[in-house]
Order: sequence, then structure tokens, then C-alpha cells
Amino acid sequence: MLKVPDKDTQLCISLAGRPGNFGTRFHNFLYGRLNLNYLYKAFTTHDLPAAICGIRALGIRGCAVSMPFKEASIALVDELDPSAAAIASINTIVNDGGYLRAYNTDYLAIRQLLQRPGLDPAMPFALQGSGGMAKAVACALRDAAFRRGTLVARNGQAGPALAQRCGYHWQPTLGALRPALLVNVTPLGMAGGPDADALAFEAAAVEAADWVFDVVALPARTPVVQLAERLGKPAITGLDVATLQALEQFVLYTGVRPAQALVEEAVAFARAV
Amino acid sequence: MLKVPDKDTQLCISLAGRPGNFGTRFHNFLYGRLNLNYLYKAFTTHDLPAAICGIRALGIRGCAVSMPFKEASIALVDELDPSAAAIASINTIVNDGGYLRAYNTDYLAIRQLLQRPGLDPAMPFALQGSGGMAKAVACALRDAAFRRGTLVARNGQAGPALAQRCGYHWQPTLGALRPALLVNVTPLGMAGGPDADALAFEAAAVEAADWVFDVVALPARTPVVQLAERLGKPAITGLDVATLQALEQFVLYTGVRPAQALVEEAVAFARAV
Repeated sequence: MLKVPDKDTQLCISLAGRPGNFGTRFHNFLYGRLNLNYLYKAFTTHDLPAAICGIRALGIRGCAVSMPFKEASIALVDELDPSAAAIASINTIVNDGGYLRAYNTDYLAIRQLLQRPGLDPAMPFALQGSGGMAKAVACALRDAAFRRGTLVARNGQAGPALAQRCGYHWQPTLGALRPALLVNVTPLGMAGGPDADALAFEAAAVEAADWVFDVVALPARTPVVQLAERLGKPAITGLDVATLQALEQFVLYTGVRPAQALVEEAVAFARAV
Repeated sequence: MLKVPDKDTQLCISLAGRPGNFGTRFHNFLYGRLNLNYLYKAFTTHDLPAAICGIRALGIRGCAVSMPFKEASIALVDELDPSAAAIASINTIVNDGGYLRAYNTDYLAIRQLLQRPGLDPAMPFALQGSGGMAKAVACALRDAAFRRGTLVARNGQAGPALAQRCGYHWQPTLGALRPALLVNVTPLGMAGGPDADALAFEAAAVEAADWVFDVVALPARTPVVQLAERLGKPAITGLDVATLQALEQFVLYTGVRPAQALVEEAVAFARAV
């Protein structure tokens, strides 16, 4: 259970166009279980520069940054960690006595997940998507030395631009491509969306692949992940990314790294809404 | 017990040079008992304008303002309630969708306390002190039509200035004056201070008075209040002021007025540290 705050309680916040409950529940659950004098609260804002001035002026310890603030915050912090510089996108700000250092823990999480045993940078891959998260995944693949990549995106501007940035090929659809690693960074298979039941990649491509990586987190077991499981192929899920990035934020804010079992409890609590 | 915050939780804060725990404990206790989705947290700042911009930009619902920010905040809000305008001093900011209206709930509390049965504006009084709280009390007495006042203050600048502002006499010491109402707004009798054991007024003056009003809140029963009690004279204490001003803040922030018994429980909880 959460402690009643006192004057020494450290506040961490999030800034998002549409605040959700995951971060608030994840962090507050862990603060309570680890008896840390911290508190987490989600915010939105119509004035990003003033909100970030407020973080500095109030000594707010940390801030998660979500859409649509991930790029506009760059000019408002003091320093970019390589994780944020790598993709020119911020999702975490840490405040040390008024000095703001910005990170991208999505990138950090994906870099970690790409080190799973059995994944090999020599594998050819196709990455589907061209938005902000696709940039994080593509840059993480590039920086993890995955060189044989194809970026699949209908968007004829963002697609080629991201492909070029990372040194990959671009094509508008997967076509006859059958790479060893399939990476989905589109909303295909996302609960509540128009394509909730869609397979992110056609079954033949999944059958031909060795690994599936789907960034969609809700549900964790999207149609394409379920198909990979049925075929006995290893999958990285959006829940893995969401968990790991939130954990990295937690460590940056508190200096404490909770045990894996406790992190899983926190994720289960945070998603049970 | 406090709820785990979610994205809809409203945050109220305080800004003080030296944050204490009273407000944090008082408000959070009541939020918990009344099941209100609010949270209270004390802050300090080195950058008042940026902190107040942050209140606006983050949609922080309310802010208590303490020393040394009570006058400097005036220029940073949108509107002064008459309670703040009366004494050119703010102790409370209420944020309605980015529009900041400022109040002084010390003044409001003192105005209410001056309506206690038996207190009469025709009474001559002496008010001892010339700081920020003395200004609130003197202006409240003035606005409650107490006209026969003497301001007692060693400070030969602030004392006469405050007396003149309210239309009272000034003298550096009480001397032979024996008014019906004695008001102490100095640290005499304050726990932890150099004058913790001091009687704020000499015994002969207390014996000659009908009422004692001591703004010192810690302890509630200061030496002069204890003497008044022994002599069977009614007293208003600093705890009465602190309770009532915090309650008025609570009502301004939440729109809810808790029952008196619950307020007393909250005060007991807030002071039990």
C-alpha cells in the first residue's frame, strides 16, 4: 500500500497527449512494495515548455514523455543520453538538482531484447512501420549491427527516409520477402483498433521465419504472436518492450532495480484495469 | 488509507522556503477519509515564476504559498480574491483550467475567528508584531471594524507602517496599556525558538484583559494561552487559525466541506509527527 506522502516524497510524472494508467500503476505499485518515498502521477499539458520549466522549478525527479512530446522536448532539456540522441526522441527525463538529462528507454529496452540467445545480427529481417516507435526499433537494430534489413511501409515519405537513416532497403509491402526475423511496428493486431484481428504478417511469411517481434503491447499475444507460438517459433512481444522500458525508467528515477518476479507482479497490477 | 493515484488524480501542492509536513498530512488524510481522488505534496523552489508556470501547464489544482513567496506570487496569478487583495499577500492559489485565482485563507480564517460570540469590535485591543502574519491579523481586525487598536512593535519602520495602513496607533512596547483584547503575532512562546518559555504579554496585562488571541500554533497552548485559561479567560489559538485556514484551502481545492469532527481528526493526524 502506498505511504502517505510527506515533504520529502519525490514526485515522478508523465506527460502525454492522452495520459494512461499503466505508468502510474506500475511505478506506484513498486514504490509501495519497495517502501520507497516516491509518488507517480500522469499529466497532460497544453504548454510543454512551461511544463518542463515546472519540472525543473519544482524539483520533480523524473518525467516520462509520450506522444506528441517526444521530439519537441529535445530542445528543452540539458543533455541527451546516447539512447535519446540515437533516435532524436525522448521518452524519459531525469532531473538531478535542476539539470535535465533525457533518455529513450524504448530504445534501451529494444537493444536489450535484441540480445536474446538465438537472435543473430546476421539474420535478414523485415521491419513493418514508419512511425516514432518504428524509428526506435530500426535504430536499435542498426546499432545492434543487424545489417540485412528491409523496411516495409506504405508511407512513401517516412518509409524511405527511415530506411535511408538506418542503411536499410525500403519497399511498400512485404511481397515475396521471407526474412528470418519479422518485426511489426504497426497497429495491426492491436486491441480496440480497426485491425484488432489482423495478422501483422501473412501466415506464409511467419511460417518461413525463425523469429517474430511484435511491438503491439495490448494484447501481448497478438494474432501474429499466437501464430508464431503455434508454430513453435520464439517471439518478442510488445509487453516485453513495455515492461523493460518501464523498468529502466524506474531504475533511472530511483536507483533501485527490483527483482524480475516483482516487476512481473507490477506489470500484472498495472494492466489489470 | 490513500488511494493509488491514477491518471485522473488531482494534485495539490505547496510552495515554501522550508516545506513542512502539516499541509501534506492534513490534506492527504482528508482525501483518504473522504475517498477523494486527490493527492497533496509539498515542494520548495528556487524559481517561483517557473514553478507557477508549471502549476498552470501541468494543471495542478491548487497550491499553498508560504514564506518567502506570499508577496512575490501576486504578479504571477490572474486574479486576487478580496482576501488576498486586502493584505497584498497570497497563501492559496486555485487553478481552474489554467486560470489562477489567489486567496489568503489566513485572513479568511482570522475574519471567521473574530466573529466568536463575546468578541466585540468596540473592544480596545493591542496587536503585538509587524511581520506578514501581523499584517493579515491587523487587516482582518480593521475589516471586522475593530477601530480602537494599538500596534505594538519594536521595529520602528514596519510597526508604524502597518499601524498607519490599518488606522491604528503604534507604540514600541505595551507599556501601561491594558486593552480588553491582547493579540500576539510574534514568536514569543513558540516551541523550538529562543523564547519558547516566554509569556507573550506580561501577566498583569493578561489579568486585565477579557480575551487573548495568540497566533503561535506550536504549541497550541503557549504560555500566554495557558495563563489565560488559568484565569478563566477565552483564548483563540494559533491552532484555531492553522486549522481553519487549512480547512478553507481544502474547500477551495475540492469543493467539499468536511464535518468539524473529521477536521479535528485530520489536524491531530497532521500534528502527530
